[in-house]
Amino acid sequence: MTYQPATGAFADSLRADLPQAVFRPLDPRYTEEPRGRWAGSGGLLLAPSTTAEVARIVQAAGAAGVPIVPYGGGTGLVGGQVSGDLSDPIILSLERMSQIRSVDPVENAMVAEAGVILQWVQEAAEQANRLFPLSIAAQGSARIGGVLSTNAGGVNVLRYGNARDLCLGLEAVLPDGSILNGLSPLRKNNTGYDLRHLLIGAEGTLGIITAATLKLVPRPARTGAAMMVVRDPAAALDLLNLARDRIGEGVSAFELIGGMGLGFLAETMPEVRLPLGQPDWSVLIDLGLGASGDPQQALEGLFEAAAERDLVHDGAIAQSEQQRADFWRVRESIPAANRKIGAVSSHDISVPIAAIPRFIAEGPAAIAAIGSFRINCFGHVGDGNLHYNVFPIPGRSRADHEGDRDAIKRAVHDLVHAHGGSVSAEHGVGRLKVADLERYVDPTKLTAMRAIKAALDPKGVMNPGAVLRHHG
Amino acid sequence: MTYQPATGAFADSLRADLPQAVFRPLDPRYTEEPRGRWAGSGGLLLAPSTTAEVARIVQAAGAAGVPIVPYGGGTGLVGGQVSGDLSDPIILSLERMSQIRSVDPVENAMVAEAGVILQWVQEAAEQANRLFPLSIAAQGSARIGGVLSTNAGGVNVLRYGNARDLCLGLEAVLPDGSILNGLSPLRKNNTGYDLRHLLIGAEGTLGIITAATLKLVPRPARTGAAMMVVRDPAAALDLLNLARDRIGEGVSAFELIGGMGLGFLAETMPEVRLPLGQPDWSVLIDLGLGASGDPQQALEGLFEAAAERDLVHDGAIAQSEQQRADFWRVRESIPAANRKIGAVSSHDISVPIAAIPRFIAEGPAAIAAIGSFRINCFGHVGDGNLHYNVFPIPGRSRADHEGDRDAIKRAVHDLVHAHGGSVSAEHGVGRLKVADLERYVDPTKLTAMRAIKAALDPKGVMNPGAVLRHHG
Repeated sequence: MTYQPATGAFADSLRADLPQAVFRPLDPRYTEEPRGRWAGSGGLLLAPSTTAEVARIVQAAGAAGVPIVPYGGGTGLVGGQVSGDLSDPIILSLERMSQIRSVDPVENAMVAEAGVILQWVQEAAEQANRLFPLSIAAQGSARIGGVLSTNAGGVNVLRYGNARDLCLGLEAVLPDGSILNGLSPLRKNNTGYDLRHLLIGAEGTLGIITAATLKLVPRPARTGAAMMVVRDPAAALDLLNLARDRIGEGVSAFELIGGMGLGFLAETMPEVRLPLGQPDWSVLIDLGLGASGDPQQALEGLFEAAAERDLVHDGAIAQSEQQRADFWRVRESIPAANRKIGAVSSHDISVPIAAIPRFIAEGPAAIAAIGSFRINCFGHVGDGNLHYNVFPIPGRSRADHEGDRDAIKRAVHDLVHAHGGSVSAEHGVGRLKVADLERYVDPTKLTAMRAIKAALDPKGVMNPGAVLRHHG
Repeated sequence: MTYQPATGAFADSLRADLPQAVFRPLDPRYTEEPRGRWAGSGGLLLAPSTTAEVARIVQAAGAAGVPIVPYGGGTGLVGGQVSGDLSDPIILSLERMSQIRSVDPVENAMVAEAGVILQWVQEAAEQANRLFPLSIAAQGSARIGGVLSTNAGGVNVLRYGNARDLCLGLEAVLPDGSILNGLSPLRKNNTGYDLRHLLIGAEGTLGIITAATLKLVPRPARTGAAMMVVRDPAAALDLLNLARDRIGEGVSAFELIGGMGLGFLAETMPEVRLPLGQPDWSVLIDLGLGASGDPQQALEGLFEAAAERDLVHDGAIAQSEQQRADFWRVRESIPAANRKIGAVSSHDISVPIAAIPRFIAEGPAAIAAIGSFRINCFGHVGDGNLHYNVFPIPGRSRADHEGDRDAIKRAVHDLVHAHGGSVSAEHGVGRLKVADLERYVDPTKLTAMRAIKAALDPKGVMNPGAVLRHHG
């Protein structure tokens, strides 16, 4: 494709059809990603406030061959929202499409525009005595359009699924500027191909999500949490299955915590209390039960049954909501401790659940072949989704290992791939992992993806260079 | 498209590459649908036993322009598996791809080939102390490839979702004969477009599913059931939300039963005991809890809380598994009673859950405008999925109303559409509802569907005439 820049003349041609408020100065935050790894050079920032305005912009862009980079909360970690090598694209921010159009507790559904911040969705659900269970670190700034476009995950996927599983319907502007009216809250609807799931996770390359019907669930009436020391990662998996056999879907989260991460916490954030010290492997189990359930009793019963099977040998059950929050603080402080130590390389990976113990066992040798490093492995073990971060040994810094990063990345990704895993578990492909996709994904899938992209976006204007390589 | 028939010469050209066992006589069952409404006239029956054989057939069909009608268990109710007006297509039966390749209780996943019968999947899961929760009336003969291709629903969608929600990965042969290797059990995998959800529900028009990785869930350790008399459908919805607030995901099924259906049961199957007589509206609630739950106590608590709110005024809680089975027998006998009475018209519809009371209230007037009829409305109210069946009044027969069927269908579908519902909730589009799709579905969606179909199946050989109109 040969792309055209969004020139002043192009902008002027839009002014006749769009209110002045749509045109905004290009603040640098729109061209940077959070870790500073990606930057765009410029572009025309447009912030429409209605679906019709989005459609008008997309039509004009298509007619002129101007690429569009959709922009939500800007929290993506793979550069999907950054214009990269594009010359003066449209940066289409959804921030002004920020209405929650409806909340219906009988329907257990909410219609939110793409620019609504995830935390607002959670709060609106709570006000209706419902739960929107998607929970990610960036929820204070991530916007729901981006959350869906990247199919975000988080800590509650075990129980409630990924973003796609929490979306009942979509409104979107397709690359030809037509509006897909699919905001139905229907739970059962077999009328043709599922375009919703095609747009979710497409990272803006097949259209722009403008609003979504989100699925709400009952708020668990009674919650509880426990930390338990497990023998090893295999015992953690057995414990998870035991927990689900005993407690069913009441298990909301099940997080594996490695001793290295607790050591980092003790070193960099000594104010965070570690209830069980620094065991090699421990888990955080979170329960949410109905009014007739008893989380403490359930966790006590689980601990006893697990101890009988020699899966656990120490544990603590939260006696209050405060203590539950303290347990979660341990888990949620690990990324901050990681940042203070300074990782050489971080990996958003998943492997089949049953392969976790072998993957964890084989990782250190693969890394040691490159040099001496420390590994902090933790994460959402119930989904097979591990955060696998590689650090310098004490006395060295990440700057000492700039040249090792690619080799580490390759070693981790190759090992993940050998175990049937994914090199992008929850962050997406963006611009960072296009080559990884080409290397690791089934070639038939890639060919079909390209055919679908060409069919729906023949001019290639929708977020070119994200997910699929562009030839602009 | 101009299609070519599967001539003897075409068949002979395949014999060099395929074992003799692939070639089977064309039994009439392959060209009929269960209710006798649809029939194909002939064709070449091929029953491959490996994915490579399926790929070879699809390649040859594409090269020769011969259409392929995929055939699973033959239980579809919308003619998706029947060749219709095609002249001598390939009828590609998956019945010999009937291996369960693996069952992994740690992974909570099973890999089953497309020809595995749904009930075998359920049984294999049970042997591994897991549950595959999809349950439909045809489970004794429906095969998993068809179950996924039609995104089947059933009674447990409320808790566990549709077929698509229970599928982690797919292997499929795409229309160009390439094999999509997507049998990963990963719960989190954001590497590109979700082809799995595109193929699920595409009814064989975008490729042939050859195997699937199915999601298993914990077997509920303790089950229970109750029937409760509700004031009206609105009270049933309030009761459902109360139940979910109190019991969470433990509510496995929540079925609305109308008095007309109980009357039909009493008339045609008096051996089925009706625990609560013949109330105008009642519900069947089914629970499955973990080992630490107490279903009877939960149902008693629910009944008390619901009675306080004046939602229910009679009820029975199953005191044994036998009694639970008796309750289910009432619900599951209603379709048989319907058949004995003889419906003029049956409808597989869904509406937003919150719209159910108004839809049910408005239906009789819409039908009365056509003539005098009896309506039996029942179904999976927790999903908004109602079976809405229209019967002659006593003394008249369905044969008296042949001329009314189209008007009734139109009236019901228009009312469904006015309430934001779907005219195909769980059976799919097939060949029966192609015109309905064109009438009721968002035109942007239809245009995008056609673009995707043309991109992935440019020769149009995959199940032409199903879902989308073909011009052969």
